[in-house]
Amino acid sequence: MNVAITLTTDMGLNDSYVAEMKGVILSINPEVKLVDICHFVSPQNIHQAAFILGRAYPFFPERTIHLVVVDPGVGTERRAIIMRTRTADFVAPDNGVLSYVIRQFSGKVTTSFAKQVELNPDIQAVAITNPKYWRSPVSATFHGRDIFAPVAAYLSLGYSPVDFGESVKLVNMLPLSQPYQAADGTLKGHIIHIDSFGNIITDIREGDLLSVKQPVTIRIKNQSISGLSCTYAARAGLLALIGSSGYLEIALNRGNAHDFLKAEVGDEISLG
Amino acid sequence: MNVAITLTTDMGLNDSYVAEMKGVILSINPEVKLVDICHFVSPQNIHQAAFILGRAYPFFPERTIHLVVVDPGVGTERRAIIMRTRTADFVAPDNGVLSYVIRQFSGKVTTSFAKQVELNPDIQAVAITNPKYWRSPVSATFHGRDIFAPVAAYLSLGYSPVDFGESVKLVNMLPLSQPYQAADGTLKGHIIHIDSFGNIITDIREGDLLSVKQPVTIRIKNQSISGLSCTYAARAGLLALIGSSGYLEIALNRGNAHDFLKAEVGDEISLG
Amino acid sequence: MNVAITLTTDMGLNDSYVAEMKGVILSINPEVKLVDICHFVSPQNIHQAAFILGRAYPFFPERTIHLVVVDPGVGTERRAIIMRTRTADFVAPDNGVLSYVIRQFSGKVTTSFAKQVELNPDIQAVAITNPKYWRSPVSATFHGRDIFAPVAAYLSLGYSPVDFGESVKLVNMLPLSQPYQAADGTLKGHIIHIDSFGNIITDIREGDLLSVKQPVTIRIKNQSISGLSCTYAARAGLLALIGSSGYLEIALNRGNAHDFLKAEVGDEISLG
Repeated sequence: MNVAITLTTDMGLNDSYVAEMKGVILSINPEVKLVDICHFVSPQNIHQAAFILGRAYPFFPERTIHLVVVDPGVGTERRAIIMRTRTADFVAPDNGVLSYVIRQFSGKVTTSFAKQVELNPDIQAVAITNPKYWRSPVSATFHGRDIFAPVAAYLSLGYSPVDFGESVKLVNMLPLSQPYQAADGTLKGHIIHIDSFGNIITDIREGDLLSVKQPVTIRIKNQSISGLSCTYAARAGLLALIGSSGYLEIALNRGNAHDFLKAEVGDEISLG
Repeated sequence: MNVAITLTTDMGLNDSYVAEMKGVILSINPEVKLVDICHFVSPQNIHQAAFILGRAYPFFPERTIHLVVVDPGVGTERRAIIMRTRTADFVAPDNGVLSYVIRQFSGKVTTSFAKQVELNPDIQAVAITNPKYWRSPVSATFHGRDIFAPVAAYLSLGYSPVDFGESVKLVNMLPLSQPYQAADGTLKGHIIHIDSFGNIITDIREGDLLSVKQPVTIRIKNQSISGLSCTYAARAGLLALIGSSGYLEIALNRGNAHDFLKAEVGDEISLG
Repeated sequence: MNVAITLTTDMGLNDSYVAEMKGVILSINPEVKLVDICHFVSPQNIHQAAFILGRAYPFFPERTIHLVVVDPGVGTERRAIIMRTRTADFVAPDNGVLSYVIRQFSGKVTTSFAKQVELNPDIQAVAITNPKYWRSPVSATFHGRDIFAPVAAYLSLGYSPVDFGESVKLVNMLPLSQPYQAADGTLKGHIIHIDSFGNIITDIREGDLLSVKQPVTIRIKNQSISGLSCTYAARAGLLALIGSSGYLEIALNRGNAHDFLKAEVGDEISLG
């Protein structure tokens, strides 16, 4: 089968951890194509991994299997799951790391930490409980290699999700921020990601801007920006644009907006 | 078709940007082999990307497609081009990032910034103007994913360069430094690259040394080195050798020549 | 042939060095699968490369070819070798970088630096001396690209080790530390690796703990730890567990044990 498995982890590339997972996968399916999405997620940062996965996976071929190992609960009672949507499969700990995927498919949002949501009927989820497809013994500290990797590999051979455990309807979801209309008529958004260039990505989408009077003024950390730009080089200094992820971004021409503004994930931004 | 696409970018590996390009390519040609040349080009450093590409691409199989996305002009009027030589294809912004390739094929050099050169008849170039093969909509900030990646993928399926736009004869070239014979009889060269070990790579090639009296004395930043070494461990302290790129390199045994000498790209070196 | 070649180097990913090796391999065998084990071995750290290779290679499919280029002696008289075991092939400088592999297969250990050991009869070793399969000319500073890479590529096509040179019986081995029973009844071990999370990996294996009275007390750098944990999150502060490599590890919950303890490779640890 001509299928790909992507990998998203917080393991970095200084050790052999990622390679060990790849070796396990290739030992089961030597034909599968392996593609790294990112191994430099901040250690144990589930939200960051969720965002990166959510933006990257739609660009991959249908039926790609996305393996995510950002897993602070490894070795505890946290579940491991397979999630199958119309277009892709996911193998991950059930710790919210699939939140952006779930929201894209079902619009579901939670506002409290790790609330369980019921999946839409067109999303299939399975708790990985059948040890038949695991490596043995399982290291208590590296389920990525001993459980997630072999499960993804057997999935790539055409096994069905239910071969790996029982169906589940509820999965954990992170609280994902959403913009809201404030009483003063401004639109309030939040920083959801800062990329490695220091570009600040917010939860405001292009469509949200329809509700704001034009030309828009954007306020963030005592700075204000007038109007939207099309490109990072469109004007000197701070600028705002709809980035390649479809979200409103704040950038600094020839600079690092994150360093300049000292803004962090969760901080508010105001448009009006 | 059993073909490879290489990727050279300044995007790093902390985000999913490179992975998104790979996903786009695999969605069009699931069989293609993807090989990273380098994703740690300094942000927007066209000359560095040009050097790295120029030294790496000849080692790849014939008809490999080399995708280069170091693209400070993304979203502006800068052209995107396909360049086809006897041995390889290149998909890149027309910003000089193919300068070392062009010089290898045609000996062409410019001495002023971004001068257009006329390509030799055996090099085919096309301006990428046909949106048929692009993703839609195109993000103004990420042509790498929405234009360059799909064009490279369709090229790997056997499409012809002219399917993507009209032929062009003039392309932009960076000024590439060249060694010269000074009035005092010494040979003057220039630093063109500093690698991640701190080795200093100059524009002097082995053949250039024929014009210098032996044993050669090399002067750089108030230091002098007598004679050439064969290996990095051949002698203590600073040494000079013909590196694996074929250029004269200055290295520090068990150390970092760049840190030691505080020499930068563009600085002069003198042999005589 | 559906075979994989892994790469382990100290070259980093900021330059095109690793890519040049991959290009050379693909030019000889365009079908081979390339998998990175690690390119961030500390420069010229043979022991670190040996440890990383030793722990990662068993997870790869049988008959995978493992290419290792951590090669401070490049260009000197140090030999290059192919080593073939029951399950895998290795192409590397004969500088001890295969020490952990040799010990796993034969139990051989040395206690002095770079002592030669005689290989078991079921391990075949060949000195790479036949230039027929090398690139020409060979750069004196980059045998990885001009000798090791093409040899690994031809091996992947089914060539026999003896096609590349003459058989040898003695290969170099690093001194590998081993735990020992001290006169006071404690078990003394040593730090053999520190991973990129700061976890401290020792030479004590699970089976070695049978000789220690339970519950065990672990002493390292004036700190003491009572008992073993199962996971990194099992308790606050310093903890000890059998890591995913099968060795006793010292970790700091939500922290970096290496930074906290200032412990280094070679330091002793005491159990009793």
